[in-house]
Amino acid sequence: MAQKKMILDLDTGIDDAMAIAYALAAPDVDLIGIVSSYGNVLTPDAGVNSLKILELLGRTDIPVYLGEEHSQTTDHFDVMPISAKIHGQNGIGEVELPEPSRKLESQSGADFIIEAAHQYSSNLILVPTGPLTNLALALRKDPDIASLIGNVTIMGGALTVPGNVTPVAEANINQDPHAANEVFTSTLNLTMVGLDVTLRTLLTKKETQQWRELGTKAGTKFADIVDYYIDIYKITSPHLGGCALHDPLAVGVSLDPSFVTSMKLNMFVDTTPEMWGRTIGDPGRLTDPNPNVTVALTVDQNRYLQTFMNYLTALFK
Amino acid sequence: MAQKKMILDLDTGIDDAMAIAYALAAPDVDLIGIVSSYGNVLTPDAGVNSLKILELLGRTDIPVYLGEEHSQTTDHFDVMPISAKIHGQNGIGEVELPEPSRKLESQSGADFIIEAAHQYSSNLILVPTGPLTNLALALRKDPDIASLIGNVTIMGGALTVPGNVTPVAEANINQDPHAANEVFTSTLNLTMVGLDVTLRTLLTKKETQQWRELGTKAGTKFADIVDYYIDIYKITSPHLGGCALHDPLAVGVSLDPSFVTSMKLNMFVDTTPEMWGRTIGDPGRLTDPNPNVTVALTVDQNRYLQTFMNYLTALFK
Repeated sequence: MAQKKMILDLDTGIDDAMAIAYALAAPDVDLIGIVSSYGNVLTPDAGVNSLKILELLGRTDIPVYLGEEHSQTTDHFDVMPISAKIHGQNGIGEVELPEPSRKLESQSGADFIIEAAHQYSSNLILVPTGPLTNLALALRKDPDIASLIGNVTIMGGALTVPGNVTPVAEANINQDPHAANEVFTSTLNLTMVGLDVTLRTLLTKKETQQWRELGTKAGTKFADIVDYYIDIYKITSPHLGGCALHDPLAVGVSLDPSFVTSMKLNMFVDTTPEMWGRTIGDPGRLTDPNPNVTVALTVDQNRYLQTFMNYLTALFK
Repeated sequence: MAQKKMILDLDTGIDDAMAIAYALAAPDVDLIGIVSSYGNVLTPDAGVNSLKILELLGRTDIPVYLGEEHSQTTDHFDVMPISAKIHGQNGIGEVELPEPSRKLESQSGADFIIEAAHQYSSNLILVPTGPLTNLALALRKDPDIASLIGNVTIMGGALTVPGNVTPVAEANINQDPHAANEVFTSTLNLTMVGLDVTLRTLLTKKETQQWRELGTKAGTKFADIVDYYIDIYKITSPHLGGCALHDPLAVGVSLDPSFVTSMKLNMFVDTTPEMWGRTIGDPGRLTDPNPNVTVALTVDQNRYLQTFMNYLTALFK
């Protein structure tokens, strides 16, 4: 079987930067492109951040595409103050990285996803870690991709735990519940890596110190970026004792589903004002056979963290 | 090992009546008493209904105790109109049963639970299928019972699906979320059989017809009672295609956990007005070891329904 191809769809962001590093370091996958989205930062800034991280890691061969700048139900997007606080105004912990030498592609993110779905079909893994606006647009433009793409593993949603924006909504889904509902109720082979598991995989300065001690530019910059994130988590989520590895866990699970236990469930995303952005089982399809969503419920955090550190430390050397 | 002893805590109710029948028919358990609660009907009516069902099934040897009549945070309880519609004004589908010959016990439900916990300890199974007011009171009066009782399996809550009273609250929990939270955050060995699974186990008139064809009083009366319930489900939940076996599924799972797949989770019950009665993972205890709640997620509905029918049909003969 051909090597798996991966597209990341990121609102790059600190944990998005770690997701890029994980995808580059993982031996069993070929990162063929990154699509940009809005959320932690604006879409154009997410694109530039992705290019900067790729250049820091010596991978200027990988193209970055611009995605949608806001949901279909809004006419613009403003970064939430809490997002700017958690990821820094520039999205990467106020750490300065050189302007990237590579430019953003002119093809749209949705069109790139469609093209790759036809080219690689079941060998394609798509990992969106922001709102699902780009994927929903791609599905609308070409519904065939639902049966082509091998697996879509999202970081987003919360099933067995409260949300992080409202009691029912996780931040990525909250940005565009309509798009998320289109994705969740499609026939895509979808895996949801939500707060259920990402709040259980935590990184501390003990780990980032290992990167710093490598004495490399990549190791130092990543330690600086992630330490910013860890410091904010100490204020916003002191009970966790570290920062959550939201986005890199989604990449990890897309490549090795055995990191998590999961259940299959027919789900929908609530778009009513009262329950805006809730990801939940669909009572009307509860007994329908072959649910398309696999929801991660628990995670082997020790094995995941060990793999994460093995991968990233080797990459930063 | 001694035979398991079971206490049911019921707001009897049509599916509560089926829970009694299941507990009496199951070969591996000894029903030692029924505690009464409020919900589908008022507590005294629940007690009388339990006595009537026991007498119909020839088991006047089993005592019935009165529990609390309302939650600690209220001063009275009114049956919700929807409950009276689903179970009938009398709670058992407007079916007439003779006044029971046995009287209600004078000992309170909470005291009976405490006494039995000390007498039978790990051999005791408690199955509350209404609000958790009685169990919370017993825990407050004697905290030791948390480590004595072998297993508490509740019918109540909803984790992976919406509630049935509000988008987040299931009816039993909704009656007394404070009591439920005391139970969920205790050290009790707790199994939650919620809407997640009970809405997947459905009974139709094809099954009740088998009871009717037995030509016995028990078979005919139970067919009449449950047909009332099935007819209401056709109006309130036409998409299900049957009536949900809420309470008898909890009894089944308490005796044979392999009917369901489950996850272990540290949970709490939300008592804020916005999320009143929501049963959800506790973000503050997400990585704490040894979660005390086992949540049923999916159910082998065919094997359960077969067992249910084998048990009840044999009992009604």
